[in-house]
Amino acid sequence: MKHYLSINDIDNLSEWVAEARALKRVPKKHLSLGTEKTICLLFFNNSLRTRLSTQKAAMNLGMDVMVMNFGSEGWALEYGDGTIMDQGTSEHIKEAAQVVSQFCDIVAIRAFAKLEDKTKDEAEEVLNGFAKYTSIPIVNMESSTAHPLQALADAITLEENNSQNKPKVVLSWAPHPKALPHAVGNSFVKMMQLQDADFVITHPKGYELNPEITKGCKIEHDQEKALENADFVYVKNWSSYTDYGKVLVQDSNWMMTAQKLGNAKFMHCLPVRRNVVVEDAVLDGNQSLVIEQANNRTFSAQIVLKKILENL
Amino acid sequence: MKHYLSINDIDNLSEWVAEARALKRVPKKHLSLGTEKTICLLFFNNSLRTRLSTQKAAMNLGMDVMVMNFGSEGWALEYGDGTIMDQGTSEHIKEAAQVVSQFCDIVAIRAFAKLEDKTKDEAEEVLNGFAKYTSIPIVNMESSTAHPLQALADAITLEENNSQNKPKVVLSWAPHPKALPHAVGNSFVKMMQLQDADFVITHPKGYELNPEITKGCKIEHDQEKALENADFVYVKNWSSYTDYGKVLVQDSNWMMTAQKLGNAKFMHCLPVRRNVVVEDAVLDGNQSLVIEQANNRTFSAQIVLKKILENL
Amino acid sequence: MKHYLSINDIDNLSEWVAEARALKRVPKKHLSLGTEKTICLLFFNNSLRTRLSTQKAAMNLGMDVMVMNFGSEGWALEYGDGTIMDQGTSEHIKEAAQVVSQFCDIVAIRAFAKLEDKTKDEAEEVLNGFAKYTSIPIVNMESSTAHPLQALADAITLEENNSQNKPKVVLSWAPHPKALPHAVGNSFVKMMQLQDADFVITHPKGYELNPEITKGCKIEHDQEKALENADFVYVKNWSSYTDYGKVLVQDSNWMMTAQKLGNAKFMHCLPVRRNVVVEDAVLDGNQSLVIEQANNRTFSAQIVLKKILENL
Repeated sequence: MKHYLSINDIDNLSEWVAEARALKRVPKKHLSLGTEKTICLLFFNNSLRTRLSTQKAAMNLGMDVMVMNFGSEGWALEYGDGTIMDQGTSEHIKEAAQVVSQFCDIVAIRAFAKLEDKTKDEAEEVLNGFAKYTSIPIVNMESSTAHPLQALADAITLEENNSQNKPKVVLSWAPHPKALPHAVGNSFVKMMQLQDADFVITHPKGYELNPEITKGCKIEHDQEKALENADFVYVKNWSSYTDYGKVLVQDSNWMMTAQKLGNAKFMHCLPVRRNVVVEDAVLDGNQSLVIEQANNRTFSAQIVLKKILENL
Repeated sequence: MKHYLSINDIDNLSEWVAEARALKRVPKKHLSLGTEKTICLLFFNNSLRTRLSTQKAAMNLGMDVMVMNFGSEGWALEYGDGTIMDQGTSEHIKEAAQVVSQFCDIVAIRAFAKLEDKTKDEAEEVLNGFAKYTSIPIVNMESSTAHPLQALADAITLEENNSQNKPKVVLSWAPHPKALPHAVGNSFVKMMQLQDADFVITHPKGYELNPEITKGCKIEHDQEKALENADFVYVKNWSSYTDYGKVLVQDSNWMMTAQKLGNAKFMHCLPVRRNVVVEDAVLDGNQSLVIEQANNRTFSAQIVLKKILENL
Repeated sequence: MKHYLSINDIDNLSEWVAEARALKRVPKKHLSLGTEKTICLLFFNNSLRTRLSTQKAAMNLGMDVMVMNFGSEGWALEYGDGTIMDQGTSEHIKEAAQVVSQFCDIVAIRAFAKLEDKTKDEAEEVLNGFAKYTSIPIVNMESSTAHPLQALADAITLEENNSQNKPKVVLSWAPHPKALPHAVGNSFVKMMQLQDADFVITHPKGYELNPEITKGCKIEHDQEKALENADFVYVKNWSSYTDYGKVLVQDSNWMMTAQKLGNAKFMHCLPVRRNVVVEDAVLDGNQSLVIEQANNRTFSAQIVLKKILENL
């Protein structure tokens, strides 16, 4: 593996999960692996968990860390080929990517979907721009279409909490006042496709994720039916993919409740809007895994960085 | 001591001051104490001295430091119980606090009073939210009602510059164009109550600090009388506590001058507005201790972190 | 050398360049030189290259680094003597400078020209304020009138790519939609005056740089003539100095093209607006040195910090 751009970059998920869990037991075991190596974390969007957990993971491996809020601290980037740059952008991704890569050994990037133009979002111009114009490894800290560090943390959390041979895992859409990207949903689906599980996606009609990603997945529009006998319920809002970036309904009937959850474990990537996406009783109950999911972000980042460092 | 939330968390002020002064002489003496330990500094407000001195103190103890401007870099936090979060806030303190505490060993927080609602400010929802929902130690880097790192630095500065058995120390209100919080005043008062000093508070009527905090303190509304034979004069503006958060008067007669100061030493926590709070002649004269107070911020933070680390 | 404020602080340019190239070969050779030393990087303006390369340089020398966006994270500074500070500024440079210098061993500062008032910009109130009120070394990370870390990186780049006894180096003005400072141009000129080169400055009439800086330099208003037989062409926009801070013309005939460039090497400090300042063909061709110039920023910062650390 050179880059960690998507779940596709994992060669053996169960091995990675096992290694991550070993790191979790002794986080500082490989403190010399990253000595004299530098990671640069570039944020084009806000971040809490990703910001702190990726720093922590890098420090657990002995790396130096530089954090930069690219949007507010750097220059507005241009991505177009051949653009006459006489407007708002003052630096081209071609230069920015090459330059940044000279100051560090690994670059990690967060650049959300803007949800205005599907083609543009799917082009992943920030992430792919860096991957195209640099020679160093790139780590995806959530791009327009993928959040593979989150999905890897989710895989660790599933493994830690699973007692079934073939658990039933449901990904359930939830209402939200704002239009949100598909990245978390996409990467969770891709990760689940690597698992031996009974996996079901449920959402109102019109909220279908990218069909190329969900190909082969069970999709059930009746949430109640989907949740029957679930072992894990992963709840997440996303905006429409077909009617790109639109909020079609905010039907509060889709909110997750303790009653709907039954005996299943509850998962969410956070941040979560209480009593909109999920009711308090779920988050405050002992079936919620959300805090442990966040904790596992450190170890998903750490296993990714470890594998990259071992290849440098 | 687990947390350092207020002056009340100091078990023996004179011992702490003595230890801090020892650290000041050899700042890197305990460089291995914080090895492999991480502190996260969360800023909900601007900061110069606190930002740099707390980082420096942590580095002097060998800690890794993560700095985050929570307001601009993270998510808007919700504090209410049972809130339906369909408005501006996207993450609840319950999750944020639990999550952050998984990525570090100590969390330090700055969250100023908003001065709009006394009850809300006094609830200290940020600081107390973190203290309630995390298991790790919390350090107060100035909250709505307290700034105990500043007051501890002030105690160090007093001790360094005192030549009296029982010095006369005056806390004098000063005019300011904006409404400012009571935190610095409150913590200075609480710290002075632990000292063997002749302590007097002076301010125009209507600017009484929280009477529960000043209970037992001499309060003199005649500034001239209050300043008579003072050894140390601590100047600070605050808005009205009774008429909460209001600027009642900006009477420039209350500005500190070299003439009023007499032979006393001048103290202020900084930043200070020259020729509004205090005239140039005082700050530029050799009775001013303000630069040394700021310097002592490193060692007040360092003694606090040292004591927390020793208990981890 | 105490401070590194301008090219004038270089005692022997060719020696510095040679030392910097040695550092480039073994960047971590002096990893113990900065141990237990702290540098504080203060940004009053945006930055990409300077932010990351100066951090990297300091880490290559084993220093601890604190980065602060002074404008957004600190307090608005006052520079005037005797000002009654009852308006927008809340801290005076006198206090800020003294205080910051207590928390670190070296302070590096970026504070651009505002281009509103020549006298004010030339007073360099931020940089000179820090130099005046602190006792620690100051490094200029681009001030109103100078960018000596860039010019030193340019000197390294010239030396690496030069095969002539006395190369012809042309500094050519280029069009730009916004009014830009003179700092890069000024420092490049001053650096070139220390070189054994045939140096020519070319720009439209009205774009003369400060004549005290260009004194003795060849100035040729005919760009074509200036570029004849050039070995290196350094392109940069700046606003008018005479009609201070104004954009007089944006004549696209002054854009650098592959045809104009001929066999010369192309240089620019970045960020650069493609197809406004220079056409794609130049930046994407193999005569462009811009990426290597940016790379050399690490080593220009590192040689400066190394010399300062050796004198501490």
